[in-house]
Amino acid sequence: MSETVNRQVVLAARPNGAPKPSDFDLKESPAPSPGGGEFLCRTIYLSLDPYMRGRMNDGASYAQPVPIGGVMEGGTVSSVIESNHPDFAAGDIVVGRAGWQDYAVSDGAGMRKIDPKVAPLSTGLGVLGMPGMTAYTGLSNIGQPKAGETVVVAAASGAVGSAVGQIAKIKGCRAVGIAGGPEKCAFVTEELGFDACIDHRDANLADNLKAACPDGIDVYFENVGGPVYEAVMPLLNMFARVPVCGMIAHYNDTAPPAGPNRVPQMMFLILTRRITFRGFIVSDYADQLDDFLRDVGGWVRDGKLKYKEDFIDGLENAPQGLIGLLQGKNFGKLVVRVSPDPTA
Amino acid sequence: MSETVNRQVVLAARPNGAPKPSDFDLKESPAPSPGGGEFLCRTIYLSLDPYMRGRMNDGASYAQPVPIGGVMEGGTVSSVIESNHPDFAAGDIVVGRAGWQDYAVSDGAGMRKIDPKVAPLSTGLGVLGMPGMTAYTGLSNIGQPKAGETVVVAAASGAVGSAVGQIAKIKGCRAVGIAGGPEKCAFVTEELGFDACIDHRDANLADNLKAACPDGIDVYFENVGGPVYEAVMPLLNMFARVPVCGMIAHYNDTAPPAGPNRVPQMMFLILTRRITFRGFIVSDYADQLDDFLRDVGGWVRDGKLKYKEDFIDGLENAPQGLIGLLQGKNFGKLVVRVSPDPTA
Repeated sequence: MSETVNRQVVLAARPNGAPKPSDFDLKESPAPSPGGGEFLCRTIYLSLDPYMRGRMNDGASYAQPVPIGGVMEGGTVSSVIESNHPDFAAGDIVVGRAGWQDYAVSDGAGMRKIDPKVAPLSTGLGVLGMPGMTAYTGLSNIGQPKAGETVVVAAASGAVGSAVGQIAKIKGCRAVGIAGGPEKCAFVTEELGFDACIDHRDANLADNLKAACPDGIDVYFENVGGPVYEAVMPLLNMFARVPVCGMIAHYNDTAPPAGPNRVPQMMFLILTRRITFRGFIVSDYADQLDDFLRDVGGWVRDGKLKYKEDFIDGLENAPQGLIGLLQGKNFGKLVVRVSPDPTA
Repeated sequence: MSETVNRQVVLAARPNGAPKPSDFDLKESPAPSPGGGEFLCRTIYLSLDPYMRGRMNDGASYAQPVPIGGVMEGGTVSSVIESNHPDFAAGDIVVGRAGWQDYAVSDGAGMRKIDPKVAPLSTGLGVLGMPGMTAYTGLSNIGQPKAGETVVVAAASGAVGSAVGQIAKIKGCRAVGIAGGPEKCAFVTEELGFDACIDHRDANLADNLKAACPDGIDVYFENVGGPVYEAVMPLLNMFARVPVCGMIAHYNDTAPPAGPNRVPQMMFLILTRRITFRGFIVSDYADQLDDFLRDVGGWVRDGKLKYKEDFIDGLENAPQGLIGLLQGKNFGKLVVRVSPDPTA
């Protein structure tokens, strides 16, 4: 394979605020060869997700930052090209974290074979992958929605939000979404079946959300922060649960927002309404993978849980894709087509 | 009993910031008479607690505010004087919520007989009463301390904090207290057996707390807010738990503190360290009363759990007592001696 070129998107500079194209660099090098117990795989689809912004910063987050000059991290669906690994054979389709590159060598750690007959391969990065499992585990373990309760989620047309609201509906809850613009909101109610969807660009966000939640909010699946969080807080009911999954509105912040300091106000609400805030990431619930695939896989197969994907063509366009994602420009789960899908 | 005078401390005005003596009024009226199924009781001890500041405000908190002209609410130990109730007899000692007054009539709701032989009567308002049960239930249900973990609590010489730290020690944890001044800190370590106690008046609070928690903080029992909270937050470990019980540093706030707004920073910590914040009040765990009395009663009897009381003489001095409590002037559980203790 030594003549094969491996394109890699590497981190050229740490962004100050919103990432710029010059914070990324496209490098070319020979594709690697698998050693003993390893396999070589070729990226078909690369997932773009909000958490990637955090990995571009120096300093501790969930995980170590991507080093300057290092390949950007990311979830991938790949085909096995050449294998010296007993559990993987050429032609297998694997989901894992090969990163922003054409080719990768793996010893199998973190790689999982998927059955191409179950669903389109790209769903392994969305509704049947990390975002879907984030929605499923965060909602069930922390949100614990009960029939008749009201569940609110932002980025409701996105990979996580769309699954949160639809699972809430399956559980018998009222699902209220928040999304950017009338087109997304119409999709959320008409296609995904949420009871209501509020446009966060509307100046009356707080009033509109209140009107859409006449019985208050029992579960707020937090993935944005910012003005949506401010609108949600006063509506939280006694014993409400807030799974904290992300804060996309703040990922590009370079300093804390202006005052006053709302922490005491938040703590009073937590106290007097006995609210639970709890942070999580999907890997905390890795042992629930089989439950997730059974439940969500079944709901997708039965048409109870729909998903929308937004494709970008070409690894070289991934940086612009992530920049747009952080501005809410995508409509559905954002996926980069890196090489032809052998099943499409 | 019509000739008997009942003194009552009523709310004269809603405080703006710290309460003043003129926010209270001492009224006299004839003591009431019990009707059918009721009893008359005389207050022996009145408890003064931080939550009372909240009841003086208009607007929703846990409970309805005390109305202007209404008797201040509070926990009491009383003796039954005259009874038409089948379950209570003259001479019985009851703990309940008779309020800031000499006499009260009750139908028995919320009143519980206590055995005067078990412990001094005043402990029914402290270590064996609401504050002790707040410590016990908040720590066990939300804090869930495991042997070897570090538990931090402020107001560590007070009614709740002293029990939190000593129960943490009984559970095999490292207990670190925070208190105001060297005398209280010495008591917390030398008498109560905490591993360390930090003076929150020391300008190096954050550094001193960090030095006292070399393995970080697993459980922070939040009852103060303010600078202590700010010092604790960066030290919270992965999967830390924060039972939110009170915010005494902010009870007299008239406006949110100056910025920047630290909510996003707090949410990032919750997210990346998977921290749980959860508000509670002791009545949420009313069904654990027997467990509490068995466990904490046993520890007190065996000398494993010590307590300190700070007495004020005379109902008329209760307002100044609450004003001082909110400034941290008490040393131990603050109790007003309203009438002679028949067991003392």
